[in-house]
Amino acid sequence: MVKENPPSPSYVLDDTGVDFDILPQLVGHHIGRAYRALFDHFCKTTAEYDITPRQFVALVLIDANPGSSQTIIARAAGIERSTMVSLVDILEERKFVVRTRSTKDRRSYALTITKQGKELVTKLKPLVTAHDAHVIQHLTDNEKDSMVKSLDKVMMGER
Amino acid sequence: MVKENPPSPSYVLDDTGVDFDILPQLVGHHIGRAYRALFDHFCKTTAEYDITPRQFVALVLIDANPGSSQTIIARAAGIERSTMVSLVDILEERKFVVRTRSTKDRRSYALTITKQGKELVTKLKPLVTAHDAHVIQHLTDNEKDSMVKSLDKVMMGER
Repeated sequence: MVKENPPSPSYVLDDTGVDFDILPQLVGHHIGRAYRALFDHFCKTTAEYDITPRQFVALVLIDANPGSSQTIIARAAGIERSTMVSLVDILEERKFVVRTRSTKDRRSYALTITKQGKELVTKLKPLVTAHDAHVIQHLTDNEKDSMVKSLDKVMMGER
Repeated sequence: MVKENPPSPSYVLDDTGVDFDILPQLVGHHIGRAYRALFDHFCKTTAEYDITPRQFVALVLIDANPGSSQTIIARAAGIERSTMVSLVDILEERKFVVRTRSTKDRRSYALTITKQGKELVTKLKPLVTAHDAHVIQHLTDNEKDSMVKSLDKVMMGER
């Protein structure tokens, strides 16, 4: 099952003798693997609060931009509008967020964080910051900076 | 809502006047945003086949490593065991994969791709390759290579 002639460029994924076929050449696969690993670690780190990375991002943005529209928060978070609706449903059900008709545009919703939501964000921030440091502990500052710059060029102009 | 003193390091996420608070400093957030953008584009590109990136990865690995155990495929794909079970359930229901008791270890499952599964993978590969090229079109080869190397260091040794 081991390829004798690895494809070029041959990004090594591991040494278990598994044939990865075209996967190592797909940059999206490396992003996906990194994301899944950090997603699992994020959920483990914040387990007692039962929160996902996306919910955390939405909460931080709603907290920092009180009264902003759901559309603006979704765009800033990089979350599709339809996904955002169900995400805010959950946050509202758990009493972390309040959704009100916008005074400027009656068709859109303005989001505000509740006292409980604010308390949750305050508790989560140090946990998530520590999680983030853990996730990238094997990267130098230079590697981290250039990875972030490159990640921000992924799907540039389309998100 | 615009911060007068941006946090350092201040990775710029956009210029909409949204206050991103601590998010720009969290590397995981940049990975998450990139992943969500490419996830949406992947699903759009492969819409007629109704497949997720994770299902694609699993199919490619099962195709390239016939008879491998579910555990080995999950590990190679970077998918948690419990998630892998429901993922293979779906692939089996759709007749892309067959799950049989391993002859070596009766407690574990061996996975084999079906004729339909093979046909699907053959159709998907060029689509996903084109999708991947689109996603990283704004990156130079050097940026791409070093981003991949850094991504592979995320959660290194723990996945």
